[in-house]
Amino acid sequence: MVLLSPELITLLRQKYQIVFKNYDLLQSALTHASYANEHRELHIQDYERLEFLGDAVLELNVSQYIFRKFPQLPEGQLTKLRAAIVCTASFAKFCQEVGLPPFILLGNGEEKAGARKRDTLLEDVFEAFNGALYLDQGNEAVMRFLRQTVFEHIDAGEFSDDNDFKTELQEELQQNGDVDINYRVLRQEGEDETTKFIVQLYINQQPHTTGSGHSKKIAEQQAAQKYLNQLHQK
Amino acid sequence: MVLLSPELITLLRQKYQIVFKNYDLLQSALTHASYANEHRELHIQDYERLEFLGDAVLELNVSQYIFRKFPQLPEGQLTKLRAAIVCTASFAKFCQEVGLPPFILLGNGEEKAGARKRDTLLEDVFEAFNGALYLDQGNEAVMRFLRQTVFEHIDAGEFSDDNDFKTELQEELQQNGDVDINYRVLRQEGEDETTKFIVQLYINQQPHTTGSGHSKKIAEQQAAQKYLNQLHQK
Repeated sequence: MVLLSPELITLLRQKYQIVFKNYDLLQSALTHASYANEHRELHIQDYERLEFLGDAVLELNVSQYIFRKFPQLPEGQLTKLRAAIVCTASFAKFCQEVGLPPFILLGNGEEKAGARKRDTLLEDVFEAFNGALYLDQGNEAVMRFLRQTVFEHIDAGEFSDDNDFKTELQEELQQNGDVDINYRVLRQEGEDETTKFIVQLYINQQPHTTGSGHSKKIAEQQAAQKYLNQLHQK
Repeated sequence: MVLLSPELITLLRQKYQIVFKNYDLLQSALTHASYANEHRELHIQDYERLEFLGDAVLELNVSQYIFRKFPQLPEGQLTKLRAAIVCTASFAKFCQEVGLPPFILLGNGEEKAGARKRDTLLEDVFEAFNGALYLDQGNEAVMRFLRQTVFEHIDAGEFSDDNDFKTELQEELQQNGDVDINYRVLRQEGEDETTKFIVQLYINQQPHTTGSGHSKKIAEQQAAQKYLNQLHQK
């Protein structure tokens, strides 16, 4: 039982020269658990296992791409650059650029809750799609696909190796020994789409700068950035 | 300028049928930054960039191995099982089983400090070795090597998908919404080889169980395990 849209099959063939051998894999990559649960009679696997695999497939391919592209970059900066590429926001953007969101199979509740626009879900689907492609056609096919979807953004200099403020802060503070760095959620405002986290940075149990943002990660990055600014002004 | 021991070359050939094409890669994989710094005239790259790559190589290969070996295991348990395999303690053990430690090039200070027995260093070298093998001979060669060194331990059931207590605790507590879980170092006793961390688990800013261990991670796992025991006794 295949629920794939012919439009998707055409899109993948025309835009990326991808023709799946096993379309069940492609279908699973696009099936959210909520849909699989609502339609148990269809016996579709959801994308979660493929996402697990695809996450590692993407990590390796991005790693080897930047390893070869920047032969002089030290390990610390490679790690920061990879973290800027391999993250929810960029994977969600790639998922949209490929054009996958309209083809995701979602349960009714999730659909109404706006899951089709949720970055974490789009990230999952992008990972699962790469996991499915890897199983179906091997890593060479994944590399060809990533050349068109991810690597051209790296070549265009869209990612920076120095905007991970949490890592930077940790490295600066721990140069001279162990320092305990914590981020605590002070409060959360709003819900779902409008939610906002206010987070405070604690260094050795002492409160310092705060940050805010749509996700805890963004709020933490902002708190770390503010503290780094203070440090560098001294 | 190659500093590789003929013994190492023989060991790799006889035990693993591995013959490097580019021995500079193998040498880099075994060179700690402290050695490269003390011998700048030799112009040897240290292993750090190879470790960055090897980390991702190992993550993918372990992921795909357990993905295929356990076709029914849900994503959550695959993630836990991978975390049990891809960790400092096991990679350090694999490094020792392969027999790499005597061939690591270390600076004098690090040698005296006992770095050759340090798990984090042995983990780095195991990752860097796999990164070098990947660059030199591709992923098929890495898979063959891992079959002899890592996968046989997985087949022997040495790793469990249910001993990651921190993940388990997080999943249990966050079932019904967002809960702030923190681990704070209360104190650190001893130094280097004898060091011991005492860590306390905080849930929504309230202190709960404590744990102790040679590393913060072990201490945190213990604190999480104790709290889970309390929860399940209720």
